[in-house]
Amino acid sequence: MPRAAYARPMTDDLSRATGQVSLGDPAFTYPLWPPMTAGCPRTSTEALSYPVEVDYAYEEVDGPALFARSASGRSDGIGRWAPLMPPLVGAGLAEGGTPLVPLEDGVYVKDESRNPTWSHKDRLNRVAVSAAARMGAPGVVVASSGNHGASAAAYAARAGLRCVVIASSHVPPAVLSFLRAYGAEVLPVPEDARWPLLRLLVERCALHPVSNLTPTHTGHAFGPEGYKTVAYELFADLGTVPSAVYVPVGYGELLFGVGKGFEELRRLGVTDRVPRLFSAEPDAGGPLAAAVRTGVPATHVEVGPTDAYAIDSSAGGYRARHALLRSGGEPLLVSDAQMRDAQRELAGQGMWAELSSAAGLAAYRARSGATPAKDAGAAGDSGDAGDGPVVCVSTSSGFKDLGVGTEPVEPVSPEWDALVPRLRAAGLLD
Amino acid sequence: MPRAAYARPMTDDLSRATGQVSLGDPAFTYPLWPPMTAGCPRTSTEALSYPVEVDYAYEEVDGPALFARSASGRSDGIGRWAPLMPPLVGAGLAEGGTPLVPLEDGVYVKDESRNPTWSHKDRLNRVAVSAAARMGAPGVVVASSGNHGASAAAYAARAGLRCVVIASSHVPPAVLSFLRAYGAEVLPVPEDARWPLLRLLVERCALHPVSNLTPTHTGHAFGPEGYKTVAYELFADLGTVPSAVYVPVGYGELLFGVGKGFEELRRLGVTDRVPRLFSAEPDAGGPLAAAVRTGVPATHVEVGPTDAYAIDSSAGGYRARHALLRSGGEPLLVSDAQMRDAQRELAGQGMWAELSSAAGLAAYRARSGATPAKDAGAAGDSGDAGDGPVVCVSTSSGFKDLGVGTEPVEPVSPEWDALVPRLRAAGLLD
Repeated sequence: MPRAAYARPMTDDLSRATGQVSLGDPAFTYPLWPPMTAGCPRTSTEALSYPVEVDYAYEEVDGPALFARSASGRSDGIGRWAPLMPPLVGAGLAEGGTPLVPLEDGVYVKDESRNPTWSHKDRLNRVAVSAAARMGAPGVVVASSGNHGASAAAYAARAGLRCVVIASSHVPPAVLSFLRAYGAEVLPVPEDARWPLLRLLVERCALHPVSNLTPTHTGHAFGPEGYKTVAYELFADLGTVPSAVYVPVGYGELLFGVGKGFEELRRLGVTDRVPRLFSAEPDAGGPLAAAVRTGVPATHVEVGPTDAYAIDSSAGGYRARHALLRSGGEPLLVSDAQMRDAQRELAGQGMWAELSSAAGLAAYRARSGATPAKDAGAAGDSGDAGDGPVVCVSTSSGFKDLGVGTEPVEPVSPEWDALVPRLRAAGLLD
Repeated sequence: MPRAAYARPMTDDLSRATGQVSLGDPAFTYPLWPPMTAGCPRTSTEALSYPVEVDYAYEEVDGPALFARSASGRSDGIGRWAPLMPPLVGAGLAEGGTPLVPLEDGVYVKDESRNPTWSHKDRLNRVAVSAAARMGAPGVVVASSGNHGASAAAYAARAGLRCVVIASSHVPPAVLSFLRAYGAEVLPVPEDARWPLLRLLVERCALHPVSNLTPTHTGHAFGPEGYKTVAYELFADLGTVPSAVYVPVGYGELLFGVGKGFEELRRLGVTDRVPRLFSAEPDAGGPLAAAVRTGVPATHVEVGPTDAYAIDSSAGGYRARHALLRSGGEPLLVSDAQMRDAQRELAGQGMWAELSSAAGLAAYRARSGATPAKDAGAAGDSGDAGDGPVVCVSTSSGFKDLGVGTEPVEPVSPEWDALVPRLRAAGLLD
């Protein structure tokens, strides 16, 4: 299909999106609509699925002007980058615009818990639910027992669409409240039943899927377009490109989005280099690390016990490998103990992160062989060739963790004499 | 004391804070240090406590230049307004900079759940914990079973200080996890024992109090200086002053801060008018409404049953009354049912707010006699004399609510035939 056939977006908005292109073979292109939700049919096989991504009329985008804009207009959310987004429908929730918080040694935490539903997933759902609305779907369906489900539910509500969340029957009770708060229909089913049910609901209720439908992960073609705004914001806030970005990885959509965002900055002449990307997977699984190690585009692994339930994927995806290797980065594995240490470090700096969210910092600490040291000059000292600070993405808040709300409240006596031993033990009294 | 005696801040930073002044009688002034944590001793009586507030060398502040700055530099947090802040010590957590999210009828929600610990309290604690650090205190102590305690714990951790949280023994378990996450010493004690224990910990452990110590509320003298940045941001983001701001009120510190911020904008010549402020208290109590009704500076009320536990204060404070009446506003009372409706409206627009957080919107809906109507042109149509949009402050996330995590997970069969009735009932299948 000649590019001219879809060289103009089908809406009258600011988007310069032109179509979809296969990551399996960029010679295979597709129109922008409908969004591909099951990867590239021409390059995928029964065992291995290749995703597609959104293409743009980059020559129509004035990169330096767009990225010279200040971070103001936060209430616009990711709509502030509209030319490089698929068409966004209706009002968003001012997603993104999350701050960078420095740790003691100068490493930055990109605190994604500051999004509308307190995780990075809002960036994806702003874009994917817009696509559902644009397609005239009655609603969306998502297989998730956590952040992704709640975020999809919130954006569906905002857009006036229905939402079905296919949750695991092991969903933590506080997360169930979260999922239900936005009016979603929550269906807790056995783990194995989730993906077949997702397909049925797509087929029989005409719901637009915002979860993956393929054997290796491809996901929604538009989703990573939301995530790439993390890269835009890092550049805008730092005034430069980081040397390295450490990203918690389940399927790797966020990692791919971050990588794409930086590649676009380079393509548009805004920067001449990109950061190395480092993926952080639980060592209980790690399909991306396994794919890189064995030299395959994407693979499956057995997942052992881990509490990092937000990123304990058995299926990998080609997107993650593509982004990682293109950036010159490496796949890293972290143990639950390393994530707990990083989670404790973040909390000790005032940020309560979900265990999975701390994987990025855990991977950085493990790779740089360092526990956090004051004034160690670690910014720019990550062992990477490039200059620039190190950024660890923290994806979500601690409220979503396993174990939250399970500790019993143990009342103490308010009598002073009874409290003295406890206060002494805590170092609060001599 | 002549003003010249404290006309210079005692630090070398950007702050133009000069001292503290009594709200009971502005002729009574105090040096900037130490922060007054028990109100104005010269105007307070045994029954009625008058707070003090921070004064500035306003003539040294270039208001138009300061407020012409874009909303960029979000990672600076409220430090971006440093000249109009008490001295801020160390690194913050990029508090504030929260977005405005429009509802269908054009009313704006100021979504304070987008702060570092997901509530407005972070603005206060950035300032109050800075004061503790500046004073050389070993730590802070706070009486709270919710947002304020967690926020104080986070900022204390960030500043390398200790934190003791005196919680109610009825603290919800998920909130207990939240409080403990930042390493605070949490002491769950009977309700009545909290304030005496707070005073003991201040006296005997030299902890700096970030909770109230007086019969009617005065709180920390510096606290509302953090809250006033809400007003600064509203002006910066809207490019104008709202006609009205609806604020959930427990003790009224936030209300006072918002009012002070707008008054400063007027004083600095940045604007020539201020919004009317409307307080939203649960009708189960309502000490501010009672004080206005009976014509006293501040009072106590009996509090009946309400689930709005974050704002169910029996003690009022003079700050709230002062700000409300100065703005030409009114005290409003809302029922739990009205708050639930507003909470549902917010969730239906993608924002999961704590019940107490929805009080502002509930009060607006009640006062404007309207359920939300699309295209009703409610922005600027609040029945107020002034032009400009209406803003409702939503203070915190739904995660902190009572009842979260208490609904049982009820697994459903993933068999299609078994699901059909449920999907039909939900309108997802014909």
